[in-house]
Amino acid sequence: MSSTQIDFYYDYTSPYGYLASERIEAVAARHGREIRWHAILLGAVFKITNQRPLLEAPIKGDYAIKDFNRSAREHDLRFTFPETFPIGAVAACRATLWLREHDDASFRALTVPLVHALYRAYFVDGKDISPAETVIDIASATGVDTHALSAALGEQAVKDALRMSIDSAITNGVFGSPTFVVDGEMFWGNDRLDMLDRWLATGGW
Amino acid sequence: MSSTQIDFYYDYTSPYGYLASERIEAVAARHGREIRWHAILLGAVFKITNQRPLLEAPIKGDYAIKDFNRSAREHDLRFTFPETFPIGAVAACRATLWLREHDDASFRALTVPLVHALYRAYFVDGKDISPAETVIDIASATGVDTHALSAALGEQAVKDALRMSIDSAITNGVFGSPTFVVDGEMFWGNDRLDMLDRWLATGGW
Repeated sequence: MSSTQIDFYYDYTSPYGYLASERIEAVAARHGREIRWHAILLGAVFKITNQRPLLEAPIKGDYAIKDFNRSAREHDLRFTFPETFPIGAVAACRATLWLREHDDASFRALTVPLVHALYRAYFVDGKDISPAETVIDIASATGVDTHALSAALGEQAVKDALRMSIDSAITNGVFGSPTFVVDGEMFWGNDRLDMLDRWLATGGW
Repeated sequence: MSSTQIDFYYDYTSPYGYLASERIEAVAARHGREIRWHAILLGAVFKITNQRPLLEAPIKGDYAIKDFNRSAREHDLRFTFPETFPIGAVAACRATLWLREHDDASFRALTVPLVHALYRAYFVDGKDISPAETVIDIASATGVDTHALSAALGEQAVKDALRMSIDSAITNGVFGSPTFVVDGEMFWGNDRLDMLDRWLATGGW
């Protein structure tokens, strides 16, 4: 855990996670921070915190879809609410964490491009990214060695990496997507990205 | 409904509602808008939208208290999480709506001072504002005719005004506190106040 790090926890089925993923790098760069990308699955977290998915809430869910679109438009981000929603992005998470932890730096360098490619496939192109084959296709277009990835998706160590990513999120008090942690301070929600920016600019308050 | 209006829906037991109440007037003034103060009780709304109070959620509730304080500090607002929480602010709502709808302009002029006095009594001084006697004391210090208020709190028309305020909120899709509506566009949450400001500055996007 470097002190110049932003821990970015996100679920691939989270619209606000997608929106934040498109802006977090600019915030990090402005303050000389590196991002650690924590792909997680919120299902397990939701059970512990006794939450239900946002869109299942009557009235609130309708507002949320409107707000996703409005929040995207404000920052000129492409966004289309996917027909298949929510999804369980197990393979997408495993692929991301496998790249992030890879021994070979040329693999690790593809982590962030893959994060964006997966998120955009889902929230821009409307592609259901839950099947492993779809993740492999997207990874291939991103330049990832698909033979290595296909093998990795079945490995116990890669499955464990996702389990650990989720456990670590829970241990750190993460309960939603996106969540940012800097210097022990946690910020939840795409709408906290500007606050995070001001926090880093001022050193906090 | 004037087109130069901001509809501000809030519950007196809502910390984010208090925080927004301290900043909404500056936003309104910047854009030449008037505020219509809709005191509501979220209990009825929560039943319909199947939500539970934020602080009852494990983990998420702890974060929320931290975030209340951090959000207050950022804007130099005084805030102390009250010992008695949540409360049912029926009398506070009725007093507010009674003033707002009063025939006498000198009574109506006390609406906003009373909103601030009630909110600050609860979230700055930690005073439980649920008893009618407490509301009357606070109103008295604000310059309200307490004989008239005491009588009003028992009147059917005043009870109906609160019921209508809540019904109107539900009809308009309000599900949380604070909620702002301008020109048919709804914004939910204290953290949407800056977005509302930008929306009014640009004419929306």
